[in-house]
Amino acid sequence: MPEASPETPDGLTGTVVIIGTGLVGASIGCALTAAGYQVHLEDRVPSHAIVAAGRGAGVVTAASPATVRLVVVATPPASVPAVVDDALDRFPQATVTDVASVKSIIIESIDAADAHRYVGSHPMAGSQFSGPLTADADLFVDRTWVITPTGANDPVDIGRVDQLARVCGARVVRMDPEVHDQAVAQVSHLPHLMSILTAGHLREVPADHLPLAGQGIRDVTRIAGSDPGLWRQILWGNRDAVRHELVGVREDLDELLRVLDDPDALEAFLARGRAGARSLPGKHGQPAATYVPVTIEIPDAPGALARLFADVGAAGVNVEDLSIEHDPSRQYGYLSVAVEPGSAEALASAMRGRGWDVHVP
Amino acid sequence: MPEASPETPDGLTGTVVIIGTGLVGASIGCALTAAGYQVHLEDRVPSHAIVAAGRGAGVVTAASPATVRLVVVATPPASVPAVVDDALDRFPQATVTDVASVKSIIIESIDAADAHRYVGSHPMAGSQFSGPLTADADLFVDRTWVITPTGANDPVDIGRVDQLARVCGARVVRMDPEVHDQAVAQVSHLPHLMSILTAGHLREVPADHLPLAGQGIRDVTRIAGSDPGLWRQILWGNRDAVRHELVGVREDLDELLRVLDDPDALEAFLARGRAGARSLPGKHGQPAATYVPVTIEIPDAPGALARLFADVGAAGVNVEDLSIEHDPSRQYGYLSVAVEPGSAEALASAMRGRGWDVHVP
Repeated sequence: MPEASPETPDGLTGTVVIIGTGLVGASIGCALTAAGYQVHLEDRVPSHAIVAAGRGAGVVTAASPATVRLVVVATPPASVPAVVDDALDRFPQATVTDVASVKSIIIESIDAADAHRYVGSHPMAGSQFSGPLTADADLFVDRTWVITPTGANDPVDIGRVDQLARVCGARVVRMDPEVHDQAVAQVSHLPHLMSILTAGHLREVPADHLPLAGQGIRDVTRIAGSDPGLWRQILWGNRDAVRHELVGVREDLDELLRVLDDPDALEAFLARGRAGARSLPGKHGQPAATYVPVTIEIPDAPGALARLFADVGAAGVNVEDLSIEHDPSRQYGYLSVAVEPGSAEALASAMRGRGWDVHVP
Repeated sequence: MPEASPETPDGLTGTVVIIGTGLVGASIGCALTAAGYQVHLEDRVPSHAIVAAGRGAGVVTAASPATVRLVVVATPPASVPAVVDDALDRFPQATVTDVASVKSIIIESIDAADAHRYVGSHPMAGSQFSGPLTADADLFVDRTWVITPTGANDPVDIGRVDQLARVCGARVVRMDPEVHDQAVAQVSHLPHLMSILTAGHLREVPADHLPLAGQGIRDVTRIAGSDPGLWRQILWGNRDAVRHELVGVREDLDELLRVLDDPDALEAFLARGRAGARSLPGKHGQPAATYVPVTIEIPDAPGALARLFADVGAAGVNVEDLSIEHDPSRQYGYLSVAVEPGSAEALASAMRGRGWDVHVP
């Protein structure tokens, strides 16, 4: 098999090695292979690398170290520092990067002599799937891909990782490693732990109180269902930044306990929360409020949602987003379809004409 | 207009007065009217009562006090005790109930001499709507409707409220008022405040960190967007039970801060949260796990979701639930369609046959 790679854009030429062929590693392999790069796959579990190769992520033969210019470490978080160190030794000509969601701990752990060849990165690609079977060359298209270079890095190494992200179709954002770790602690790790705290508190709730649970607690506790083994690694690697956020929340919780007896102060506290919820950027960075929710009542009869889908499809308006309000104790719910303000009435009248009970705000 | 009401099932005969014609009050009026009861509507804002009457909730003429056997108070939470007291005075032959989500504070506030004629109730009917325009006689069908009688109540009064809930099609659950208030503090009020704490903490997050936010924080903070003016009333009325739960969570938060440096203890803490999330009853009381998620990739091109709906509809399987994984920074997402295990492969192959990228676990 030829080790020489075809001509490629500036920044990244030569062979790429991907270590760890789960969803993220295999998807990066698919994107690089589609762009004409020679990609070699490694995995502690050989069958995973073989499955990834079958999805078009690369080849499972060993690369000649001298030809390798980039190594992407996509193993579970706890193993990344050791695997990065090993890759820096095995591939002396290569830039080494990784895809873990916490960066500082890796920089602190790697061999100082080779530090200039390691450039951390964090593609913000989520999926409810895992494993190479669902590998997808488009997984990173239009996603944010954070790169966390340090003063020790050579511009050539930074340029290769930059190009990796661009070849995958991602939007590159450069951040200081500590700033990145603080940001994910704030918008990802803290919310995860607040969900865990809410769900864990249910252990003290008698079973005959649970039928009173509605949609709200289900939304708040959804991410608490995630794999504790994975999150143990993520949180431990960012524990200092996470602790800082948790201490801030504890101060807010103490404030909440103080204002609970003062209706005006309590309302101000609640309003601060609503302002925070509204500060999150909406789809494509737009405020969600730019779309109008058209809400349609759905009976839970066999085929009812299917008929509803068919009728919404026949209405021919562009659906921007949708959600279903499903009550656990109830035979039906509401389908909320978000459309451009100009399309709301057209969809509503089309659906009413087909006999659906429709509400437009 | 005749004040005499037709023969009705045991427990509730005679005229009903509904005070407060928002979504809940007007919907109760629609259900009672449909069942043949004579319903009179009152609202501080006369136009609301007129709109409710237009939806079939009852009439806006005044009832003759001697004929009224049941008064349903459906006004905003903070006003309920005073309105119940006034109703007990104005309608001496009537049982008086209400629909507020907190009960003990009302029992403590009403005139002791008439206490035996007040029976609290709490229909667990949620909707993203408010106001009489969306009144729906079926709003309470198959919903839990908690009734909170006390030792002071006369069985006749309890029977009338029991019948009210049954006429509305709800599943009646009897609870002690304090137990009810504890239960809603645990499964509704505490989760709401955890969402508020998570969202409120964003005020300390730099704007350039927010683009790293994914779906998780959006789910956790969704209910923080609710009306602070309404939640101020709900929480203040249940502040003792809410405080008890918040103190419990603060103890868990202190425990979390202690275990953050101990990976094994941290994983056990996270696993406790997952167990709590899984303890919530699923749709129709079944565990959600009895359905299989068929996940379909959706490009965000105009009409793509509409075509997807049409194709799912054409596949003709019974869709139990669905959700869309929408990444705010990305051009497309995944539609997750929950179906009976036996239908998953049929839907998947039908959709693949129409060119969709489908995943079945």
